[in-house]
Amino acid sequence: MLKKTTKKNLYISESVWPLPQIVIPSPERYQLKPQSFSFGYRRYLDTKHSCSVLDAAFKRYFSILFPGYTYGDENEVFTLTISLDRHDCQGYPNQDSSERYKLSVFAGQASLNAETVWGSLRGLETFSQLVYQDDFGSYYVNKTEIEDYPQFNYRGILLDTSRHYLPVQAILKTLDAMAYSKFNVFHWHLVDDPSFPYQSQKFPDLSNKGAFHPVTHIYTQSDVRRVISYARMRGIRVLPEFDSPGHTKSWGKGQSELLTSCYRGGTPSGTFGPVNPTLPSTYQFMASLLKEVASVFPDPYIHLGGDEVDFSCWRSNPYIRAFMRKMGFGLDFSKLEAFYIEKIVNITSVLRKTSIVWQDVFDYHERRKFLSVVEVWKQGCYLCEVRRVVKAGLRVILASPWYLDQPGPTHNWARYYNVWPLAFKGTEKQKSLVIGGEVCLWGEYVDATNLSPRLWPRASAAAERLWSNERQTSCVERAFPRLQEFRCKLLRRGIQAEPLSVGHCKHEYQSG
Amino acid sequence: MLKKTTKKNLYISESVWPLPQIVIPSPERYQLKPQSFSFGYRRYLDTKHSCSVLDAAFKRYFSILFPGYTYGDENEVFTLTISLDRHDCQGYPNQDSSERYKLSVFAGQASLNAETVWGSLRGLETFSQLVYQDDFGSYYVNKTEIEDYPQFNYRGILLDTSRHYLPVQAILKTLDAMAYSKFNVFHWHLVDDPSFPYQSQKFPDLSNKGAFHPVTHIYTQSDVRRVISYARMRGIRVLPEFDSPGHTKSWGKGQSELLTSCYRGGTPSGTFGPVNPTLPSTYQFMASLLKEVASVFPDPYIHLGGDEVDFSCWRSNPYIRAFMRKMGFGLDFSKLEAFYIEKIVNITSVLRKTSIVWQDVFDYHERRKFLSVVEVWKQGCYLCEVRRVVKAGLRVILASPWYLDQPGPTHNWARYYNVWPLAFKGTEKQKSLVIGGEVCLWGEYVDATNLSPRLWPRASAAAERLWSNERQTSCVERAFPRLQEFRCKLLRRGIQAEPLSVGHCKHEYQSG
Repeated sequence: MLKKTTKKNLYISESVWPLPQIVIPSPERYQLKPQSFSFGYRRYLDTKHSCSVLDAAFKRYFSILFPGYTYGDENEVFTLTISLDRHDCQGYPNQDSSERYKLSVFAGQASLNAETVWGSLRGLETFSQLVYQDDFGSYYVNKTEIEDYPQFNYRGILLDTSRHYLPVQAILKTLDAMAYSKFNVFHWHLVDDPSFPYQSQKFPDLSNKGAFHPVTHIYTQSDVRRVISYARMRGIRVLPEFDSPGHTKSWGKGQSELLTSCYRGGTPSGTFGPVNPTLPSTYQFMASLLKEVASVFPDPYIHLGGDEVDFSCWRSNPYIRAFMRKMGFGLDFSKLEAFYIEKIVNITSVLRKTSIVWQDVFDYHERRKFLSVVEVWKQGCYLCEVRRVVKAGLRVILASPWYLDQPGPTHNWARYYNVWPLAFKGTEKQKSLVIGGEVCLWGEYVDATNLSPRLWPRASAAAERLWSNERQTSCVERAFPRLQEFRCKLLRRGIQAEPLSVGHCKHEYQSG
Repeated sequence: MLKKTTKKNLYISESVWPLPQIVIPSPERYQLKPQSFSFGYRRYLDTKHSCSVLDAAFKRYFSILFPGYTYGDENEVFTLTISLDRHDCQGYPNQDSSERYKLSVFAGQASLNAETVWGSLRGLETFSQLVYQDDFGSYYVNKTEIEDYPQFNYRGILLDTSRHYLPVQAILKTLDAMAYSKFNVFHWHLVDDPSFPYQSQKFPDLSNKGAFHPVTHIYTQSDVRRVISYARMRGIRVLPEFDSPGHTKSWGKGQSELLTSCYRGGTPSGTFGPVNPTLPSTYQFMASLLKEVASVFPDPYIHLGGDEVDFSCWRSNPYIRAFMRKMGFGLDFSKLEAFYIEKIVNITSVLRKTSIVWQDVFDYHERRKFLSVVEVWKQGCYLCEVRRVVKAGLRVILASPWYLDQPGPTHNWARYYNVWPLAFKGTEKQKSLVIGGEVCLWGEYVDATNLSPRLWPRASAAAERLWSNERQTSCVERAFPRLQEFRCKLLRRGIQAEPLSVGHCKHEYQSG
């Protein structure tokens, strides 16, 4: 009987997903009772030791630990006590935030120490995954020591709200699920060719005319604030993307003169191409819009896009060609694109924001000094590209291997797991420039109807790659039962995560 | 303005999915008001003209027509009056039920005539799709004449509740969606290797020991009755499948001696193969189980499976080999399989049920006279197989081109649309033996988390193929906007149907 318990116990601490860096498990287990469990703060010398982020997290995790119970703290027998090195509860997580934590579970209590509140949120998630129920419904947690920190600081998920509008509720649900897999960046691809759902304060016509519907299919300022605040409470950054000069068809509906007028046979054809980079009004508009964006989104980074610019419309337009001649660009339209992007990056710098761009901007421009972070998205030898970027001294986010919008059997999750962003020849310093990776869920065939099962649990495979020690998590066969169990936990928490294989979960997903 | 209205009107009547056989549209439109709309029966000579199936349908369709309103019949201004040639409200739909109906919408009223109550349900569905809202929220229906009937009598969807357990709620939701696409058979692949969730009255150990969980992951008799009754109210048959002699691993857990003991090196290996066809006890058990199934499921058909029997275990077993010699089967194990299936079919016949088998049974047996209906499921030249079956004088259900469990981009819906089951050389009489087709949603990677978006709207493409006139519905480009609109209707009705392409619906799916 003891043997069985031992085996079970070891299994429990291995079941945390993504796997912590260092785990010392034990067969010794303690019973937890909902009515006598509490969260607490280590007493500080001063009395102001309460933290709104943690107070909210305690509520969430109490329901996760003990579904169906309400928080009652009579007679506390088991207490999880949190201490923070820095008491930074009012701010936002950022690229440099420490997420390191130490969790010790021992007789009748647990202590969770972290440098920041964001690290303590990661520790709470880990603790919640350590608690399990036996066949009679009693809750247990095993004596465990965990030291943990992420392999990469940037662990993102991109949602595309232009090709399909995603109701705010679907975004919030995704933020919940992200926290369970320890993702920390919501890359919000807000606008693109098909629609412009962001309701700008300064340019309301952008969504009035460019959204699928000016009232029901937009994100109001209050929606955006809600998303940012919900994300912050879970230690997740919101990185806005305003992709230009391509992918901007919907912008043109509410902002005349912004897009390039395409010509056919010497006259305007009535269609429009990328942003017109030759007009001063373009930069006035972009500066004004980005100033608003910079104030609405607290994150110090902005994604400026810059991918897939189609030159044919620029080429057709005689005014653009005249500008090219004047500037001495010859027939090289990538020079015109660089000219545009450099100006936009400068606008962003003045706003004290760091810009991220898609790899196209890096690939096609000789002058790269003005760039900071490059996101690699193209298929093929993506690690060759990663290497090129870090050799140029720039930071990299890797997205290529994690394009999850393409449906595929869930059993191909291993394809997303078998990725190692640092598997290229380079110096330690170069490798340190790879700041992380990102799962992209483009919206051509995705909306609120299928977002969750398409994302989960396949994105969790990428999450472990980005959080855990690669050497401890390189075996697909060992990861498989752990991911299966994690998927059942997601179901239990109301996340519509697809099955990985034949089988069952104790608590199946209950459709409405 | 009139012109625009005309165009809109024509579009509306074309938007019914699947497309009715004959539609005479008109630009003339009538306003409908929830508070003054009612359903009614044409008065019969006798006074017993109420019908429970229709009374329930009136409630459902009122909510579908006017979401958010309650049925109030003050001051009826628009009445949809139903008349039936045969007043058969108490029975069940069957393979020969007429689903023909005539719908006329004219000033202030609509009349729906059908031979049977099942036909009138199809007509109600069509009517509900004719009603639309203008931009101010007013409801309209256009003057329209429709004569309609299905191309094929058997239009099925298979759900697999063995590889993953599907909560009853997920099945009921699927039945709702099936009615919207005019599917009429729920092929319930109840049991298989991984689990046996059907709770038998006579053999409770089958689910006690063979289900994933003996309490939470089973279908009780009351669950089954609920599914059958819910389906009947929507004009849908429930076809149970108890697949044998292969695909029965889970049966063996609760019924000892049923499966063949596999041998290695002259001794039992501890593993089990297909049902043991050499023991009289096998047939006693099967007769008893099938007698129960025949009484629980009212449909005159039972699916007996018979696919993918692996002969290696039979071959390893010395008792089976001895039986083979005694029967003069030589080394041809397909003869043993035929021996088994023929006995099971006979048992089914005695129970006055018609049996359906997978194509394997037809393919591997010379004596085919005992067969009735063959379901073609293998890939490759499936129409060659259909032709072989009808040439042998047997009826066919076609499933091969509609295996939807394989995920794939929704934009491949056209692959499911571009199928015509009668596109083979044969006589009219032979073609009449093709009784229909079936969408199969096998459960390896499907459970309640992803069932709906994987099924809808792709299954609806097959539905139009099986209902509508092939010549009027052979163009993918013309079907596309109609299917897009139908998908938006599904969302509006709470069905989690995937997007087909970039775009939006007026009412997006709201995730819980």
